[in-house]
Amino acid sequence: MISILENATPATGFEASVLEVIKDRRSKRAYSNQPVEEDKIRSLFEAARWAPSSMNEQPWTYIYATKDEPELWNRIFETLSEGNRIWAVDAPLLIMSLARTKFIRNGRTNASAKYDLGAANAFLSLQATALGLNVHQMGGYDKEKLVENLNVPLDELEPGVVIAVGYSGDAEKLPDNLKQREEAPRLRYPQESFVMNKSF
Amino acid sequence: MISILENATPATGFEASVLEVIKDRRSKRAYSNQPVEEDKIRSLFEAARWAPSSMNEQPWTYIYATKDEPELWNRIFETLSEGNRIWAVDAPLLIMSLARTKFIRNGRTNASAKYDLGAANAFLSLQATALGLNVHQMGGYDKEKLVENLNVPLDELEPGVVIAVGYSGDAEKLPDNLKQREEAPRLRYPQESFVMNKSF
Repeated sequence: MISILENATPATGFEASVLEVIKDRRSKRAYSNQPVEEDKIRSLFEAARWAPSSMNEQPWTYIYATKDEPELWNRIFETLSEGNRIWAVDAPLLIMSLARTKFIRNGRTNASAKYDLGAANAFLSLQATALGLNVHQMGGYDKEKLVENLNVPLDELEPGVVIAVGYSGDAEKLPDNLKQREEAPRLRYPQESFVMNKSF
Repeated sequence: MISILENATPATGFEASVLEVIKDRRSKRAYSNQPVEEDKIRSLFEAARWAPSSMNEQPWTYIYATKDEPELWNRIFETLSEGNRIWAVDAPLLIMSLARTKFIRNGRTNASAKYDLGAANAFLSLQATALGLNVHQMGGYDKEKLVENLNVPLDELEPGVVIAVGYSGDAEKLPDNLKQREEAPRLRYPQESFVMNKSF
């Protein structure tokens, strides 16, 4: 472990003022069955659209499916890990995010593609929070199966997280262990453990 | 090129409503010499702190230097590419971001580290916008030299972008080509080119 993280323990509470959407964002698991409105879906991707990226390459791509289209929705859903399916089954909107791994201008590898996708999905998440929606990103899914189900061209795109989106629902219907996590305080390492004003 | 990007051309303007901080954020280059207040610096890192991450690993680390500490500030500045030094010379705050590449719990490789750093830096950028600050992320720097200058332990941390932060300054003092970019409309691919509601 690197020295600045020795003895560091995640804690709850804020150390400095931050935007309300940052304060309020949380990866919850209880979803209501209320559909996400079409104009809100467009706002989510609009937020991603305006993220910064290396050379303004904008290396993000999204496939989304609502429960109104059960065939497409299920192509994404069925690839999720069992632990994610337990709660994501209620999410009215599932989004597969992908990173375009080559530069459009010259076909060379874009080493920043996944990093930039992280930024775009972060913007999307805060926009969702502002719209009263919950977002939960998932790395736990069967990549091979999802690539097959959506016919992803792997020579151009690299699968990123799958994102569950929807309005918050009743935590009571979650299994006990997930219900506890839903209500537990959010934990973060203190700033002094990851912010330095000097060399290593 | 993948089919959905064929014939796509970046355009200006918004296609759907988004948060004001997302609308207003822009990677400008003209900085004033006004220092960034200490409490605002803490707010920037607080925003990064509350980003989501895989397994809540929070794999981000930051070294920051203000112009009040010219020795440390210069250790970062002198590694920037010439094209970045031209304008970043006026930035009162420089931040080196790093990704912790191994999980704290088990020492294994964290494949999401750079992706999660992208999210944390995105939160930081929007917080900066909300505080009236400009943020410009830079991939253009001499990595070997910066690692040496800051004594970065490469077995634990991977260098990410260097971030210039400060209040906006007078674009007139920039070289002509950069002045034009400062004032040109922001361009993004339209949603129809990167958002799909179907399989490939």
